[in-house]
Amino acid sequence: MQDIIKNLIQKNNSKIVFVVLDGLGGLPVHGKSELEVADIPNLDMLAQNSACGLHTPVAHGITPGSGPGHLGLFGYDPIEWQIGRGVLEALGLGIELKKTDVAIRCNYATIENGIIKDRRAGRIPTEESREIAERLQEKIKKIDNVEVIFAPGMEHRFAVILRFLEPLEKGSAQIMDTDPQKEGNPPVPVTPETPQADKVAKIAEKLIGAITDVIKGQEKANYVLLRGFSQAPDIPHFGDVYGLKPLAIATYPMYRGLAKLIGMDAQAITGDVKEEIEFLKQNYDKYDFFFLHVKKVDSYGEDGNFEGKVKEIEKFDHILAQILALAPDVLVITGDHSTPSLLKSHSWHPVPVILKSPYVFGGLCRSFSERECVRGELGIFPTVSLMPLALANALRLKKFGA
Amino acid sequence: MQDIIKNLIQKNNSKIVFVVLDGLGGLPVHGKSELEVADIPNLDMLAQNSACGLHTPVAHGITPGSGPGHLGLFGYDPIEWQIGRGVLEALGLGIELKKTDVAIRCNYATIENGIIKDRRAGRIPTEESREIAERLQEKIKKIDNVEVIFAPGMEHRFAVILRFLEPLEKGSAQIMDTDPQKEGNPPVPVTPETPQADKVAKIAEKLIGAITDVIKGQEKANYVLLRGFSQAPDIPHFGDVYGLKPLAIATYPMYRGLAKLIGMDAQAITGDVKEEIEFLKQNYDKYDFFFLHVKKVDSYGEDGNFEGKVKEIEKFDHILAQILALAPDVLVITGDHSTPSLLKSHSWHPVPVILKSPYVFGGLCRSFSERECVRGELGIFPTVSLMPLALANALRLKKFGA
Repeated sequence: MQDIIKNLIQKNNSKIVFVVLDGLGGLPVHGKSELEVADIPNLDMLAQNSACGLHTPVAHGITPGSGPGHLGLFGYDPIEWQIGRGVLEALGLGIELKKTDVAIRCNYATIENGIIKDRRAGRIPTEESREIAERLQEKIKKIDNVEVIFAPGMEHRFAVILRFLEPLEKGSAQIMDTDPQKEGNPPVPVTPETPQADKVAKIAEKLIGAITDVIKGQEKANYVLLRGFSQAPDIPHFGDVYGLKPLAIATYPMYRGLAKLIGMDAQAITGDVKEEIEFLKQNYDKYDFFFLHVKKVDSYGEDGNFEGKVKEIEKFDHILAQILALAPDVLVITGDHSTPSLLKSHSWHPVPVILKSPYVFGGLCRSFSERECVRGELGIFPTVSLMPLALANALRLKKFGA
Repeated sequence: MQDIIKNLIQKNNSKIVFVVLDGLGGLPVHGKSELEVADIPNLDMLAQNSACGLHTPVAHGITPGSGPGHLGLFGYDPIEWQIGRGVLEALGLGIELKKTDVAIRCNYATIENGIIKDRRAGRIPTEESREIAERLQEKIKKIDNVEVIFAPGMEHRFAVILRFLEPLEKGSAQIMDTDPQKEGNPPVPVTPETPQADKVAKIAEKLIGAITDVIKGQEKANYVLLRGFSQAPDIPHFGDVYGLKPLAIATYPMYRGLAKLIGMDAQAITGDVKEEIEFLKQNYDKYDFFFLHVKKVDSYGEDGNFEGKVKEIEKFDHILAQILALAPDVLVITGDHSTPSLLKSHSWHPVPVILKSPYVFGGLCRSFSERECVRGELGIFPTVSLMPLALANALRLKKFGA
């Protein structure tokens, strides 16, 4: 589908603002969902005058992770573009990945006579973990001609990026985790699952040796376990597909990392939605597509904090006028998946969406909520269709066929 | 999609009850459909508090047979898994098929000097037909090393199963019907349409010879015509795909046969929906997925008996409390296709569905009917998506991607 869209692109001066309230959708508790309880007069008004509906991130019944959720929003089929665990971990640690990279999630571990005694090295303090990573980076810069990048994480966790000189074949990162899963077992040897993975496996083996040489004398973190080997996907760039100059505005590294993976600009910013909107205003002239990511809505949902999630949605409602004041040609407000406080986790439920543009009907929803969006003119549709709808409403898509 | 679902399965102790009111959907006669006329306070209440919608069995405008209708409900793409006529006939006659089987629909016919005089052997009485089949089974047990099973049917109809020792290649049953379609013609020779079908064709030729040797002296049923050659599909088992232990409860052999084909347990039971629910109760501890099939709703629809269909739906409504008393974690009530009395046949219309679970909105439908289900939170969706939705609501699916 993206191929077809790409061929229909026509450029103009329109601006599209795409707000993702992470984990927006919810479920009723005492009869009402978070959106139904929230006092959100501005979003309600917007829903009344916009096209509304619900979108299904991956497929019916499938609960998406953040990766598939966002890829879908950006118009990439999340089943075609499956992003590996190592890649997501590296993105989350703020590493910018290149197409020649293999990313690996790593744990410091404690080994004794060849047996893993502690898979997490006693959950060493983050401070200590960071120091070890720095020491490793100093000593290990390359293995053969492959660049090695250490990305420190929390406690015993870190990531390693193997940056090859040339693009790798498909299947090159299909390597078994070396984590034996249970203490009292020896580590699993580096085992490629495809012939294409031999090359990366050999480097990984040498990597384990090199790391162990540096840390073997330590009491707790004296070994390393490798998991989630994955290749950075050779994914088309957002700007190339849609003819847009995109800016990602997100405070969490993982979302910026995902955005960078598809070629969006994404500077590190800190603060809250207020700072994000400030940043949006400052850069409004320089781009024509803005992905604005609001993390906390999801965080409260994950905590099962219904009230917290409600307040966070209300907070966005208060500040919405500032986005409207920019008068984008198309404004989308939605989530990447649902995170009902009731479930304390992501869920499979379709996500409510508002699409504001001059070319919609409106008048079908009384307010902005999951139940009201069922009545909306967009119906229930796959998330990957949202980008084409935004482009169409920005008059950026030519006619298909004559 | 089933591959993706399979990889996301997590087991728990939840129970899913899946009620199929065969041919449930209808069409208005004097302004109201069967469901709209029926007095069904329990189903209405359930619809008010559940997720509702309509599902499209195969594709828009396509009227499904019972095979595709049920395969879709069980999450098997009915276009990918096309079950041959011979296989359905054999299942309907209560034969349990193995993956090495080829099934054939057969007619006794009358032949004279090499010309078919009567394609149905004067519609000989079922009693007589059964006796001939028994005689054939006694004399013909094997052809070469292929086991031959005779399954008597109604009047001139019966089925033959050729049970091979080893799995056959795809295309092995692509053989032309030997039925000349018109009386006054000779039978069509056994003609394989692919090279892979040569093996089965040779056995079929010998089968015709062997059968004719036994019955050639008879007045009417002195020949046999073979139709609908088909292989039992090498279809993944329901239990393997979904990690569920499934029980099929159905009084009609064909539905039990279909269920067995995908590895469900399905004992022969007789009686009505009352006996079926009794059987459900007795076995409720032993399984975690229950397919309960109610045939008569469809039968009245096929007869064009609007009132009969209404009464049958009302009968189920009266007994619904007994299913609710079991408190399944997820309860689905739907049909395999629509059978409007107005059309006296299956139809292409989407089928209303109720999905009861703790993780739904509800409050969108005032009652259970086709028109009310249009307003439901599930929207109009493909039938194959119903199993993933049921699994998700039973919290049996892990997150997709990180």
